[in-house]
Amino acid sequence: MKGQRTQQRILTAARSAFAERGYDGVSVRSVATAAGVDQALVHRYFGTKQELFLAATEVPRQMGEVVQGAMQKPDEELGAALVEAALRTWDSEVSAALISTARTVLASAEAAPVVRDVVLGTILRDLPARIGARYGEGEKRVSLVATQMVGLLVARKLVGLEPLRSMPIEELTVMIGPTVQRYLTGDLEGIQPEE
Amino acid sequence: MKGQRTQQRILTAARSAFAERGYDGVSVRSVATAAGVDQALVHRYFGTKQELFLAATEVPRQMGEVVQGAMQKPDEELGAALVEAALRTWDSEVSAALISTARTVLASAEAAPVVRDVVLGTILRDLPARIGARYGEGEKRVSLVATQMVGLLVARKLVGLEPLRSMPIEELTVMIGPTVQRYLTGDLEGIQPEE
Repeated sequence: MKGQRTQQRILTAARSAFAERGYDGVSVRSVATAAGVDQALVHRYFGTKQELFLAATEVPRQMGEVVQGAMQKPDEELGAALVEAALRTWDSEVSAALISTARTVLASAEAAPVVRDVVLGTILRDLPARIGARYGEGEKRVSLVATQMVGLLVARKLVGLEPLRSMPIEELTVMIGPTVQRYLTGDLEGIQPEE
Repeated sequence: MKGQRTQQRILTAARSAFAERGYDGVSVRSVATAAGVDQALVHRYFGTKQELFLAATEVPRQMGEVVQGAMQKPDEELGAALVEAALRTWDSEVSAALISTARTVLASAEAAPVVRDVVLGTILRDLPARIGARYGEGEKRVSLVATQMVGLLVARKLVGLEPLRSMPIEELTVMIGPTVQRYLTGDLEGIQPEE
């Protein structure tokens, strides 16, 4: 019981520290001090600074669940399902936390490996194997998907580029779904109009 | 002559200030102090903090030139031309400045309007009118192009997502060019395989 309360206090301290000072501006020591515990205890509960960041940030877990939900769809509907599920999450009440986390990690060169681990190891975990087994080039296809999804997030939520920012989810799904679908299951050598 | 040297000194001070402390962490006053001039002089030469940031950052001008170069192509080659030109610039010697600028502006909510002005007003300036006149929905199409281009930049250069990070420019142009081409000139209601 006491251990759980301490863990929660550390997470709360870490969350405000990362939000206020960015990934680079936070040390495990400063989080320990803010939480009123010994630094060794933070390491014991949460491991490295990267692991503490991931634990403090709900976003990777939430985005992972969104993608897992979309993964229930058959292959030929995956593109639209991923785009729609992501857009719904980004427009939901988790939006503020997501935007703040995205700003934090994009601002930091040091955080780049964390982002890679999160995107490939948590959010898109099962996708490369599933797609690769059937269409080949699983890792390459999923990294192309990542370019479109990350760009959609940045342009719509971080930069607020109009008219994209105000476009309804349904419309964006119709427009961007086929891009993600092609990256996942299409001919990567180019779109060949069939006669 | 003296005025030009002063302007250059202000730009140099602004460049290091934005790189070190991010967009939000810099005031016109702090740049003036670092350059050893009066704050009013900075405003007189460069206008607002936004305008000073744009002047200090070479990136928008360079990216604008890249896009203008690609714009020489006929409509049906624009997608590949834009992707290839952007990738060449991002892999060139301007890469470090670009990445640092991108980190600075993406980290800051305050900088979002600056990014919008740069993307739409400088880099992609003539594209919406050209595309809109022939295919309709120019602003919407160009904002979709922006999602793919920004995501490509972030995933390849800021996050360094593999295998995307190491893929040759030619291969990426073949894979991503058709996406940008469809956003510019294609059927936005979905890709219709023709019989």
